[in-house]
Amino acid sequence: MKYGYFDDENREYVITDPITPWPWINYLGNEDFFSLISNTAGGYAFYKDAKFRRLTRYRYNNVPMDNGGRYFYINDHDTVWSPGWKPVKTPLDKYECRHGLSYTRIKGEKNGLEAEVLFFVPLKSWCEVQKVKLTNNSPEAKSFKLFSFMEWCLWNAEDDQNNLQRNLSTGEVEIAGSTIYHKTEYKERRNHYAFYHVNSEIQGFDTDRESFVGLYNEYSGPQAVLEGKPRNSHAHGWSPVASHYLEIELKPGESKELVFILGYVENSDDEKWESKNLINKVKAKDAIEQFNTPGKVDAALKDLQKYWDDLLSGYVLNSGDERLDRMVNIWNQYQCMVTFNMSRSASFFEVGIGRGMGFRDSNQDLIGFVHQIPERAKERIIDIASTQFEDGGAYHQYQPLTKRGNDAIGGNFNDDPLWLILSTTEYIKETGDYGILDEMVPFDNDESRAKPHFDHLKASFYHVVNNIGPHGLPLIGRADWNDCLNLNCFSTNPNESFQTTENKSGGTAESVMIAGLFVVYGREFVKLCRQIGNNDEADAAEPHVDRMVDAIKKHGWDGDWYLRAYDFYGKKVGSKENQEGQIFIESQGWCSMAEIGRDEGMVHKALDAVKERLDCEYGIVLNNPAFTSYVLEYGEISTYPAGYKENAGIFCHNNPWIMIGETMIGRGEQAWEYYRKICPAYLEDISDLHKTEPYVYSQMIAGKDAHKPGEAKNSWLTGTAAWNYYAITRYILGVRPDYDGIIIDPCIPSSWKGYGVSRKLRGTTYNIKVENPDGVCKGVKEIRVNGKKCNDSIVSYSPGEVLDVEVIMG
Amino acid sequence: MKYGYFDDENREYVITDPITPWPWINYLGNEDFFSLISNTAGGYAFYKDAKFRRLTRYRYNNVPMDNGGRYFYINDHDTVWSPGWKPVKTPLDKYECRHGLSYTRIKGEKNGLEAEVLFFVPLKSWCEVQKVKLTNNSPEAKSFKLFSFMEWCLWNAEDDQNNLQRNLSTGEVEIAGSTIYHKTEYKERRNHYAFYHVNSEIQGFDTDRESFVGLYNEYSGPQAVLEGKPRNSHAHGWSPVASHYLEIELKPGESKELVFILGYVENSDDEKWESKNLINKVKAKDAIEQFNTPGKVDAALKDLQKYWDDLLSGYVLNSGDERLDRMVNIWNQYQCMVTFNMSRSASFFEVGIGRGMGFRDSNQDLIGFVHQIPERAKERIIDIASTQFEDGGAYHQYQPLTKRGNDAIGGNFNDDPLWLILSTTEYIKETGDYGILDEMVPFDNDESRAKPHFDHLKASFYHVVNNIGPHGLPLIGRADWNDCLNLNCFSTNPNESFQTTENKSGGTAESVMIAGLFVVYGREFVKLCRQIGNNDEADAAEPHVDRMVDAIKKHGWDGDWYLRAYDFYGKKVGSKENQEGQIFIESQGWCSMAEIGRDEGMVHKALDAVKERLDCEYGIVLNNPAFTSYVLEYGEISTYPAGYKENAGIFCHNNPWIMIGETMIGRGEQAWEYYRKICPAYLEDISDLHKTEPYVYSQMIAGKDAHKPGEAKNSWLTGTAAWNYYAITRYILGVRPDYDGIIIDPCIPSSWKGYGVSRKLRGTTYNIKVENPDGVCKGVKEIRVNGKKCNDSIVSYSPGEVLDVEVIMG
Repeated sequence: MKYGYFDDENREYVITDPITPWPWINYLGNEDFFSLISNTAGGYAFYKDAKFRRLTRYRYNNVPMDNGGRYFYINDHDTVWSPGWKPVKTPLDKYECRHGLSYTRIKGEKNGLEAEVLFFVPLKSWCEVQKVKLTNNSPEAKSFKLFSFMEWCLWNAEDDQNNLQRNLSTGEVEIAGSTIYHKTEYKERRNHYAFYHVNSEIQGFDTDRESFVGLYNEYSGPQAVLEGKPRNSHAHGWSPVASHYLEIELKPGESKELVFILGYVENSDDEKWESKNLINKVKAKDAIEQFNTPGKVDAALKDLQKYWDDLLSGYVLNSGDERLDRMVNIWNQYQCMVTFNMSRSASFFEVGIGRGMGFRDSNQDLIGFVHQIPERAKERIIDIASTQFEDGGAYHQYQPLTKRGNDAIGGNFNDDPLWLILSTTEYIKETGDYGILDEMVPFDNDESRAKPHFDHLKASFYHVVNNIGPHGLPLIGRADWNDCLNLNCFSTNPNESFQTTENKSGGTAESVMIAGLFVVYGREFVKLCRQIGNNDEADAAEPHVDRMVDAIKKHGWDGDWYLRAYDFYGKKVGSKENQEGQIFIESQGWCSMAEIGRDEGMVHKALDAVKERLDCEYGIVLNNPAFTSYVLEYGEISTYPAGYKENAGIFCHNNPWIMIGETMIGRGEQAWEYYRKICPAYLEDISDLHKTEPYVYSQMIAGKDAHKPGEAKNSWLTGTAAWNYYAITRYILGVRPDYDGIIIDPCIPSSWKGYGVSRKLRGTTYNIKVENPDGVCKGVKEIRVNGKKCNDSIVSYSPGEVLDVEVIMG
Repeated sequence: MKYGYFDDENREYVITDPITPWPWINYLGNEDFFSLISNTAGGYAFYKDAKFRRLTRYRYNNVPMDNGGRYFYINDHDTVWSPGWKPVKTPLDKYECRHGLSYTRIKGEKNGLEAEVLFFVPLKSWCEVQKVKLTNNSPEAKSFKLFSFMEWCLWNAEDDQNNLQRNLSTGEVEIAGSTIYHKTEYKERRNHYAFYHVNSEIQGFDTDRESFVGLYNEYSGPQAVLEGKPRNSHAHGWSPVASHYLEIELKPGESKELVFILGYVENSDDEKWESKNLINKVKAKDAIEQFNTPGKVDAALKDLQKYWDDLLSGYVLNSGDERLDRMVNIWNQYQCMVTFNMSRSASFFEVGIGRGMGFRDSNQDLIGFVHQIPERAKERIIDIASTQFEDGGAYHQYQPLTKRGNDAIGGNFNDDPLWLILSTTEYIKETGDYGILDEMVPFDNDESRAKPHFDHLKASFYHVVNNIGPHGLPLIGRADWNDCLNLNCFSTNPNESFQTTENKSGGTAESVMIAGLFVVYGREFVKLCRQIGNNDEADAAEPHVDRMVDAIKKHGWDGDWYLRAYDFYGKKVGSKENQEGQIFIESQGWCSMAEIGRDEGMVHKALDAVKERLDCEYGIVLNNPAFTSYVLEYGEISTYPAGYKENAGIFCHNNPWIMIGETMIGRGEQAWEYYRKICPAYLEDISDLHKTEPYVYSQMIAGKDAHKPGEAKNSWLTGTAAWNYYAITRYILGVRPDYDGIIIDPCIPSSWKGYGVSRKLRGTTYNIKVENPDGVCKGVKEIRVNGKKCNDSIVSYSPGEVLDVEVIMG
């Protein structure tokens, strides 16, 4: 069953039934101020950091799910309703939610009154704008009451949940005209407050939750709303909220537009106060002035749309398959940008108070957005590299506000360093900016220990070389990409982390996945060295890569597929010799991509084993057979019920590695089949089962061993977005930038007749037309550039030019 | 307005209106297994540790407040209702909640059907028993449907809130007959599971929240209940719950009793499984067998009542004032026991995941329960002392599960050590067990560094002596008793703790409160030394006390009251010289109790100043004038809005220090007035304003500078309980144990004619009758024991005897 449809023209997903199988959300904001918003207007807003600067309160995993947000209540005589259906849940005569790119538009109609609310964060602003358009579609005059409502979070979202013995006494507000100011803790150490404004005279307000909602009422029926009467309450402690009350009259056919603004302001110490205990409102008034008319709001929305036009113009596919086109051109790129903004911090599954930015996550995410915002990609690379240690190891996470490594988690995740080579080389290929290699970048956030960024890449490379185990394979450390495969951390206490419990001393567990990764990015490092003319470095590095290839062939092959690892005791992991977990996806992916033993048939065999043992209707599971008991020496992986998460779930992040592996050996049908299986737009019809949004990837889909295969979890913030974008655009569609030009090397189903790609790169616009007259999967027999035959498979850069590129497969 | 009444006969508070101004709660359990339960059955259960072993899920500060608990739903044809009104909130024909001692009984009636639920944790058990009695009071036969319901917490209450990306995949249950087992994470590192059972065949069940409640429904109307049809759902991940479904028929006048049991089981590694993936249920079945009939339940309740008869028999007052009697004989003692069990961990204001046991809190709490459970008091003292450092300092908190000091908070709260002298001397006076002084007690939890407990007291004493500041007064460290007066920690970053931010180096702020405390407990230490014949130690210690008295007189006196402190810069805190915070309560209390400068009139002056400047209608505020701006060098205290918490709130914990001070100078009227002002039973009539339970103390009542003076917060877990009990029983009623006998030294209003106290102590029963023929406040002119005149004001111990003690004041 479907709950809406794609409106590709407007780049929107249109939800037509509010009762989706899970809240289907969107993200507002692009730089500093962000909001999460569900299809019923649930969610919350924050400034930069979802933990430390939470503006509005939200309760995860609540009953009902997704309760709390920016709500509008309409009391139209006897009928109380909300434009987004929730929270009131009065059945609406009409409902529609349009999630667009950084904006959401929710429209409800009841008894001839239509209410449409547009939500977005204007570019370069620190506020969420809500334009409410009320239209009387009935033949009678209407007079009704409108209440806005939100609940303030007392800034630190974690403390807000837990420190009630303090928090219930600290809440402070100011009410001035039509603006409600949330100034809790402003008088002490905070240099910031928030406000909620409406561009109209109000007939009342509330700022105390209990007064407005009632102690025993639900959000679905606040006392003030039910009685159609605000309390004009002034919060002192307890739970401060903000609600405006407006009495509105509309003639038949008449419309009225109101603009609500939820904003954030910072003041320096010397400008905090207007007078004793009255906050300085100058900046709030400035922000209000910017957006306080429908005209200004519409103009700001246009700017936002223009911003997205630009971002999405770098890669435009015309394949004739509307589902593929909308994913490649709109939604997958959009999700990559959201992941850039949020890392793993705030979704409807990530509560925004836990982790900072992941070292490996952020490096990988970059391959999904580097073509959209190369300058910010560069900044991100530098931020990440600054948390690296001199030996090439790295903090596993760092905090977005401070940009410093997270001591509580520490390092020793031995795949981490290599991803820095991926992000940096992709950045250079995209931009041609070799200058990044000369940027001085601190180690361990210590400016005095800064070195050129190239040295960070070298340190990354040698961190593997210097941490080799008994089989010549890389030591795994706490874990490699699979955070849940903890081969050196034996945890018996349920109150400790699987990853950060003390390592077994002298642990020598080895990872075949890191080995494959090292071959891929080791070769990239060598290639980069040669590219910049540093042949000595290349010559020194190359033998290490070759040795690793040999080690994998000798100790990383199980006969029909690549092993996954050696455990603490030197026993094989991911082998026929095991009872459970005989085969794992990650090493098949990376060793295939590295083409280890390709000539000996290893790659084909391994990928065939993936097909046979790991593939299922909904995607490729992580391992097989699933673990049914806890394996102490394997760690968290075996704690999950079979078929979920890292225990034989379809952990979508790694499926593209197999897709790319398949393209290496030219199996276009298979690569495409894997792509389509987990691609959300193709899952729209099974939304009831899939549950999460049909326009973005989820982290995990329950695998074949699960109770309910095909059910997805943890949508939005996942490396899946970047890797799938990378797999489809670079390897299946085969259009990928390289140092000296653009490579065009498709690997597609033989039935495809062709497709077009418009790619903007380094000032060149490539209008690529791929034709497949012979019905092959792979192979290019001719490339013509502006009609002229090209002798190479690489089309070089021609800044300022528009090139027509004809590609004939065969 | 009142919402119920005291039933002293049954030692119950009876709530007759479910819509109390705040959830009014009770505690079930006395040793290992605990539950919190509100008057509408909200709350949760845990085993020992509310953070690490949470059995059922609860959401604090929710909308509506107190949503979630152990709920029963009745679907009686078209009417759906709950016996406790919530969560359904269908208006009931009758409602009553009786909070008794460790049990709660909630009764509702609707359309002739009565449902009474008795909740308690039987002694020595690891389960909560719920006996449901259904009675058909109508003239017609009734057939209806009963649903039980609770939501499992995935054990670690903090992780349960936040780690959704994992938790939504891990939930596992087993359903066997009428028992639902919650075995999440049991297959890995947990040695425990929980179960929910009913002693009757069921006609259906649910274990998946979404199936039962519906994704968009509220607890007030779960889909399964509204439709009268369970889903027989088996949870796999998401949110596991437990709901039994029973179809019941009752003839007119007929009753039926059902027993539900929520239990916790631990199995050792070798007995975890019945067979592959099926948990070993032997212990669960044993527990069920113990309580699975109404008869067994009733017997267990009798045992519980007998347990409380014993606990409360040690001090029985007959004053003729029923409010005073019920506080002294029942509720104040009850609260002290709950505080013993919970420390500050779990109430409706303390979320149970934050703090462990406080060093100073636990020592002080002991004076409220030492007479009830002296053996456990001893164990507690040893646990606390084990976290002390060799220099006498101490971890500020320790974890109840591990009994180890909390590294995250550390030490340096310089009042901490002295409270160990209070608890130990009170313990010895109560029991005569000098043996505790010879117990070998570790320092810093290191058994190899164990020394006799006496050495810990000595270390406590000398920790003050060795940490003296420029004025000869004790260095305050991070803070003294007032955690919010942070004179050496200057915090400018809103994300850091006021207490644990780095100390200013060389900080020499001094505390006059610790000075007074040192004089009181320094003298106690000297007295104890002499008592055990260690005169050398006494002689060595005494001059330090004398010097402290001099230092306070010289540097701790502001002319009309005692100073509070010297700050980091050596400036006075709590002085006329200050703009705000000119006078503080704590130093007035302790210096009065220590009688510093009594002969010079200091005590009288100070207490008069308290009356004039700090007293108000609802109690004594902490400081005056309240702070209206942030004072960086004072710390957290000035962050609160004026009149709340430590910033001029009535922080009830310290009010008894003033009461005791008043008794020192014989002002019985004043002591009594202060007692009554904050005593909950006297506030029952203003429940609308007071908000919290009229049967227990709250931590704080909003002071005279507050927006709403008289509004209380943070009920139940507060040192207020112990100190008020101590003040009323030991100093106002004046019956206090000493080393060699019981002291009887009342200080009462002159209008009191007399009162009786029955006190059991060291095997002696004292039936004390105090008469006040001359209408004095203080002074005893004659004591007769069994009719014989006693030459001393101390009546000695006579184990095995019952003594009639007549006390004539005058």
